[in-house]
Order: sequence, then C-alpha cells, then structure tokens
Amino acid sequence: MTKTNPGNFFEDFSIGQVLEHATPRTVTEGDRALYGALYPTRFAIPSSADFAASVGLAAHPVEDLVAFHIAFGKTVPDISLNAVANLGYAECRFHQPVVPGDTLRTRSEVIGLKQNSNGRSGVVYVRSTATNQRGEVALDWCRWVMVHKRDAEAPAPETVVPELAPVVAADDLVLPTSLDFTSYDFAAAGEPHRFNDYEVGEKIDHVDGVTLTDPEHMLATRLWQNTAKIHFNTQARPDGNRLIYGGHVISLARALSFNGLANAQLVAAINAGSHVAPAFAGDTVYAWSEVLDKAETSAPGVGALRLRLVATQGHDESMTLRTEEGTYKDGVLLDLDLWALVPR
Amino acid sequence: MTKTNPGNFFEDFSIGQVLEHATPRTVTEGDRALYGALYPTRFAIPSSADFAASVGLAAHPVEDLVAFHIAFGKTVPDISLNAVANLGYAECRFHQPVVPGDTLRTRSEVIGLKQNSNGRSGVVYVRSTATNQRGEVALDWCRWVMVHKRDAEAPAPETVVPELAPVVAADDLVLPTSLDFTSYDFAAAGEPHRFNDYEVGEKIDHVDGVTLTDPEHMLATRLWQNTAKIHFNTQARPDGNRLIYGGHVISLARALSFNGLANAQLVAAINAGSHVAPAFAGDTVYAWSEVLDKAETSAPGVGALRLRLVATQGHDESMTLRTEEGTYKDGVLLDLDLWALVPR
Amino acid sequence: MTKTNPGNFFEDFSIGQVLEHATPRTVTEGDRALYGALYPTRFAIPSSADFAASVGLAAHPVEDLVAFHIAFGKTVPDISLNAVANLGYAECRFHQPVVPGDTLRTRSEVIGLKQNSNGRSGVVYVRSTATNQRGEVALDWCRWVMVHKRDAEAPAPETVVPELAPVVAADDLVLPTSLDFTSYDFAAAGEPHRFNDYEVGEKIDHVDGVTLTDPEHMLATRLWQNTAKIHFNTQARPDGNRLIYGGHVISLARALSFNGLANAQLVAAINAGSHVAPAFAGDTVYAWSEVLDKAETSAPGVGALRLRLVATQGHDESMTLRTEEGTYKDGVLLDLDLWALVPR
Repeated sequence: MTKTNPGNFFEDFSIGQVLEHATPRTVTEGDRALYGALYPTRFAIPSSADFAASVGLAAHPVEDLVAFHIAFGKTVPDISLNAVANLGYAECRFHQPVVPGDTLRTRSEVIGLKQNSNGRSGVVYVRSTATNQRGEVALDWCRWVMVHKRDAEAPAPETVVPELAPVVAADDLVLPTSLDFTSYDFAAAGEPHRFNDYEVGEKIDHVDGVTLTDPEHMLATRLWQNTAKIHFNTQARPDGNRLIYGGHVISLARALSFNGLANAQLVAAINAGSHVAPAFAGDTVYAWSEVLDKAETSAPGVGALRLRLVATQGHDESMTLRTEEGTYKDGVLLDLDLWALVPR
Repeated sequence: MTKTNPGNFFEDFSIGQVLEHATPRTVTEGDRALYGALYPTRFAIPSSADFAASVGLAAHPVEDLVAFHIAFGKTVPDISLNAVANLGYAECRFHQPVVPGDTLRTRSEVIGLKQNSNGRSGVVYVRSTATNQRGEVALDWCRWVMVHKRDAEAPAPETVVPELAPVVAADDLVLPTSLDFTSYDFAAAGEPHRFNDYEVGEKIDHVDGVTLTDPEHMLATRLWQNTAKIHFNTQARPDGNRLIYGGHVISLARALSFNGLANAQLVAAINAGSHVAPAFAGDTVYAWSEVLDKAETSAPGVGALRLRLVATQGHDESMTLRTEEGTYKDGVLLDLDLWALVPR
Repeated sequence: MTKTNPGNFFEDFSIGQVLEHATPRTVTEGDRALYGALYPTRFAIPSSADFAASVGLAAHPVEDLVAFHIAFGKTVPDISLNAVANLGYAECRFHQPVVPGDTLRTRSEVIGLKQNSNGRSGVVYVRSTATNQRGEVALDWCRWVMVHKRDAEAPAPETVVPELAPVVAADDLVLPTSLDFTSYDFAAAGEPHRFNDYEVGEKIDHVDGVTLTDPEHMLATRLWQNTAKIHFNTQARPDGNRLIYGGHVISLARALSFNGLANAQLVAAINAGSHVAPAFAGDTVYAWSEVLDKAETSAPGVGALRLRLVATQGHDESMTLRTEEGTYKDGVLLDLDLWALVPR
C-alpha cells in the first residue's frame, strides 16, 4: 500500500463529513517580513505596531490575507488534490486579526454534493473554519470545487446544493475587538481619502504594475504550505509553465490597491471570487477597484466599503470588466468582491 | 479626481516645508533573516545577539543599512516619484542602532531649491530624519534630487543651495551608547585586522562576486516599501529591463566587503554616494575599498575608518576608480564614501 | 599583504589542531519562515508551536537542517575554501533542538590527514561541533574533504585516518529532553503511519517534484552564511552555471519526504551522505526513501527509523539507486543515510 496521500475523490465525500486538516502552523514575524518582500504592501496597520496600537488593536496583526492563505493551504491535500477546478468562494469572514504566535488549524465540513451529468466528477461544497490555539475563529469561508471520481461507476450521492449568500451582509461583518478609527492618522497611513470620499460606482485605477517571476510565486505558495505540484514542477503541464497560485494574484492585487485605497486597512470579508484566467511568470499585473457598496459599522469611526478588486494582465485604463457579450474581457485575471474597513 | 498619488512636482516644494512620510514600519527578526538571505553578510554584530552583547549593546541591532533602506524608502512617494535623477547624499549619520520592535517613521524638511535653466525641472534638497517609536533619531541624511515641474510656466522659486559638509567630521559621528570594543573577539568576528592594521591609501580587493537576479532585487526593494515602478515592471523601460534599486547594490557591496573588512562592524555615517551606472539582472557585482581616513573615537577600543566602497560590474583587480580624463571607469556602479567603526 | 581570507591549504592543517570558526549566528523566527518559503516542508513540530508543546518540547524548534546548514556553513572559510571535493560525512548527531534565540558557533578539530600520492593535495578529516550560547552541543559531525596544497614540495604529514562509525548506533542517538510521542496527534501531523507501519526494505516514492531556480538556491545558501563563490557567480564555472549547494538538495529532499514520511518528525543523525551529481537551475528534483533499519528508543512512544533518502533529477518510479555495475544510476543527485524519530 502506498503511504503517500492520494487525496480524496468525489465519492469519498459525504454530507456532514468533517475533515480535520493537517498541519497546524504558527504565524511569525518572519511571515510578516516575507509577505512584505513578496507583495508591495504598505497598509499602515500590518506595517506598524505603533499604528496598530493607535487604532485600538491589542497586538500587531499580520495582513489578513496571510491568515487566508495559510488556512486555505491546509485544505488542499484533503479537498482539492484531485480537483478539476476551483469554482468559487462565498461567505468568507475574517474574525479576530491573526498575530505572530497564533497557531492556525483548519477543519472543513462537507455542506453540498452534486455529481456531474457525465458521471466522472462532481462538485463538493465545504465550509472551512480556521481557529487559533485558543479555539477562537480566525476566519471561515465556503468554497466549491469540481473533483474527479475515482470510479465512474460509483453511485451518485443525493444532490445537496447549499444556499450561500451572494454577499456577506454588512451587519454580519465581524469587527476586530476595540477597533477605533476616531484618532486615525491619515498622514501616517499615506492618503487623505476617507469613507465619505468614496462613492458607489466609483472606479480607481491603481496605476502600478508588477511583472511576475517564478521564484517569487513559488516562495509565496510554499510559505502557505500549499504544495499543489502544478505550481512548482515544470513537468506538470505540457507547456512547461508553472501555474501561479491564484492567491498570489489576490495578494498582489490587494497590495497594488494601496495606491488609491491606502485607508482600506482591513479585509473584513470576501463575498465572492473568480480566478478568471491563469497567470504565468512574465505577466505584468495591474489592478483596479470599483466601489460596489458602503455601510456604516458599530465600531467608532469605522466604515465598510464593498469593493470589486480586479487584477489584469497589462494595464487597462478603461477598467472594463466584461465584453458586450457579458464574458470577461481578455486580460482579466481576477474578479474579487470584498468588504474592507476604512476610517469615516 | 484621481485618488492615486501623483507625487510632488518641483513647484510643490518650498523652503522650510516639512513632509511627514507614510507609512511607519516596524522592524522585525524577519527583516534580519531576509537581509541575510539577500546579501552575503556575515558581520558579527548583526549576525549574533551574543556578540552584540559582548561589545556592550543592550539589544541586538539589525544591519545599519536595513534602517537606511526603510527610512529612505518612505521618502520616495513624496520626494522622488517625479524625479529625473537622484543626484547625491550627504551628512548621513546613523544614531542609535535599530533593533527588532522599533517602528521607524521619516520626515523631511526642504532645505534647498534651484530651478534648472531650462525651466522644466529643478533640484530639491531635503534633510530627512528617521525616528523610532520613542521619538529618538535613528538616522538622518541630506539628499538632493532633480524633479520635474508640472507646469514649465510656473514661476521659479528663489534659489537656495544649502551648504553641506563634504564629509561628516569624525567628532560628529554618533557612537552607539555603551559600545565597547575592548573585549572584542577577533576569532568570532572572522578576521584579525584592527584599526592599526589599515593605512590611509590602502586598497582592498574584496575578491568575491555575485551575479544579480530579478527576483532577488525585487524582494529586497519591496521589503523596504520602495515601490518605484521602474524596479518591478518590465513595461516601464523601452528595453524591458527592470532597473535595480541603487540601495541593492549598496547592500551587496557592503556585504562583499566583509572579506577584508570583517571588523568594520558598524556604519557610522555615509559622507557621499554616487550611483555611477545602472545595474541589471545578469551583472556580476564585485567590490573594492580604499581607506580614505582614520580617526579615534571616544568609545572604548573603537576607531573609525573612512572608506571609499566601490562596486563594479565584473572584477577589476586594478581597483581603478577613474579614467585619465577623470570620468568614472567603465564598469563602476557605485562610489560610496562612509565611516565605519572598527576595534582598535 | 592581502587582508582577504586565502583559506587553509593542506599543509596548514595538523592533527589535534582546533579551529574556532567565525561568525556566531543567532537563529530567529525569520529563519523558520524563510525555510518554509524555500522548501515544501510541513513537518508538524517545526510548523506548529502548539504541536511541539504537545510532544513535550519546552520551546518551538526550527527544522533540524536549519541548524545543520548554519553550523556547516561556518566551517567553509576555514576548512573547504580550497577544497577539491567534499568526500563524506559521518557520525552527525543532533543533540538538543535549536530554537529561535539560540546563537550557534562551530569549532572543528583535525582528526585525520592523508596526503594524496600525487603530492598536490590531501584529505583532511575534521570533527566539528556546534554549540549554543550556553555551551550546550547542538550537533556534531565528522567530514572529510580533499584540499589543495599551497606548495606541492611541502613535506607530507604522518598519515592518520580516523576510524569512523559507518552508522550511528541507535543507542548513541540523542533524544530531545522530555520528548514524548504517547499523545501524538496523527490527524494534525498529516498521516496515520507509525513506527510499526514501516518495514525494513520498504521503499517510498515521495511522488512530488520541484524545479530548481537560481534565486531560490542563492537565497538559501546565503541564509546559512555559506559564501562559496561557485554558488553565486556565473563567472566561476566555464559553463556559466551556478552550482547548487548540496545542502539545498538535502533540504528539498527532506521536505519532499513529508509525503509518505510525515511522521518522521525529527532528524536524529546523519550516518553518511554523498552528493552524487551536481544540481543546477532547471533540474526537477524528486525523492524516494528506503527503510534501512528500525530501533526502539528510551523516549516514551518514540521509535527511530534509519532511512536512505535519495534525491533524483527527474522522477524514477523504479527507485533504483545503482546500475548493475554498482555505480550510481544516472539522475541520482543525493544518497543520504539518516535516523529519524517517529511515533510508535
């Protein structure tokens, strides 16, 4: 019997099944430094312990996406090792900020199953929850992926498709304990724009571009213990290219968005996300954002902006998401819908 | 109105103007590790907490150039986003060593302005000061850069050219509190050479060479939150090359200088510096030093060497800085004039 | 007189000579993060402070190989700067686990000398010991390398060839203080296989492959302060390739072995090792293991597996080490013989 992990196939999943994912991982100041070396991020809260303290946070959090990538990476060996495609995310909420010293582990519950009509694969829906060493939730999210069947003759399970919110309601956002933007230092944060300066429908071209390289995306992807071979092995695809982990593009776009959204300090939720096209070394990634919605929150001085964050290969000054036919425009890499917290 | 940072143009500066730069940044042990991965540094004080304690330092400092790069990076968005050229440095002094946990912020005061005769640009002189979370000065320096005018018709300001010292006087060097080299462990430090072993006029070929790569200089430059697009975007220059941040070459040359100057433990001042030629991936960088001056200091067992540190593309065993015509010799990348502290 | 390090030549070594290597180096959480970015490691003890505490460890160790690389790197300038070849390792034992904050230094004693019949070089045997800031041994090992003579006419020393154990006896393994695998969490660790599930003679194909890049191996090698120019300088070899530090392949193979040996948590000893062929950027490295021996230990719930860990360029599903003639098969890069600690 082989001792290596064959991953789960569609027929290995059942409704209500709980998977405890290996391996727990402790977040460190090394993660903060590497994140800053890999992405051009300058958001003041993760950049400065002083600034974090000045907005009421008890400890110095790392970027929210550090927690996302670590938590997500843990699910890969059990959920998506035999995946055909990563179909979507929903209801991703960031709870208390993750700080160095926290140890994250992730568990997933199967909440939906739908065999494809071809009988050779099916869609698995899971709700995953990452907790720290005290059992507190760091983040949770739903994800659905298309997974191969081991045996096309295996019987189809009863179809269960969960109802997932298209958007996390503003009232359901979790605010970091004691977050307070009433003494927010706009000069230190880098831009003067506050909640009221952004209007629904407004688009922001983040202007800067970064050309991708193989060593950088491999360093990033390994850091999250995501070991899917397609990212590391030039023999895994016929064209010899290493496919770039979608999360690398998310982090890059988020960091680029500093230029115009420097005060969108914390990601509170990811409502939905599509990796529209694959990215490879040599691509130059740009980003633009659209304000989709605005909401007040119960935390002092804190508002929430719902943003569409779009990454493109090449600069699209027109900031066009779709063609007239309604399909994504060529060059769009990522279409992410998120809530961010900003000073009012 | 665009929300992205357009940077300042020549006519936006005025004498006495103070700019508080975003974003404060906390130094961590992750910075120390990354610095050691990016540059072949082995200086015993930043390498070993034990060694640092043995020479009287209360905490374990990171390399002086970590502080320099972070402090300098903060000024880019406000001072040099619209720069034509970085013309020079002067009077850069390192005050108390920076240790993990310190949060650095930088402010600059405009101390000189001189419009160019073509009316399309001008030279801006600033004195920048980086302070830690307790308001103590970490380093300060002067820099002058040529900046575009937004509008060539804008009136010229009164010309003010500050008097800057060509060299920081030895008496003006700041010595780290309680630094004491009287029990200095030369075996641990790696070389036997002390203050008296170096003579003014002596040149040292540091022998080793390192070939530059794009991912490495991008990781370094991002780490310092220097986001000038010319370093990251292959679409920013007609030749498709990413220009390497000059500070990357400074740090590489300083690290290479360990071989022959292992006891030049701390950089006390940078008197002047010229980025003589651009560097690109594929270049192999070597370094040599010349002893320009020597001075005793008030700290026990501590002397100061004034060194010219030269980085070259390719190995120049002749260690020649200039041609007979007085111009820099082909292959010279960097000409840096600094004070370093060594055991007597 | 040149101030740069010329290294030692064969006639500079004498039996009983002790070399105190520069420079001491403090291990940090940054090293843990970088190690995780450079190698696809997921072993639960170094990954999680929580998991480490759950198996009785007082602090959170970094990977054993971090200590190995740092300790080994220190010996390069004194022992192998003028080496023709690194001939072998023996009797490498890991003592107490290294944790962030530990400062490592290495000393070596010359235990053997044998001039080659050509008179131009000789073999130097050293026993090296790395200790922490409290003088406790972190690891020790023997190594022999062929070193050039400075002067072929220099007289040959008396030949002394030390007797080295072909394998560290199981009884001589050092177990981390208070290590206890009786409450070992197999789900968190990632695999169910325990001591009794492995049989002597069993081979495990670790399946995954990673394609090497130049920036990554340079970052790794510098991190260990190993500055041998052959790894960094494209001008050092006629073919313009940078030779990859053998330890990079060791760490990569060890990390790949997680898939099938996730519970081989700690390396207790390296019995022997051969860098069979050089590795270069573009090579895709795979690994397989063979169980060579098994032993119980005195620590609660802890067994030891003696493993042959083989790295190959390209995937060899046949897991063949040697040709019929007894030479290494083409594609074999590394043949390492080690003891690892696993739950019983």
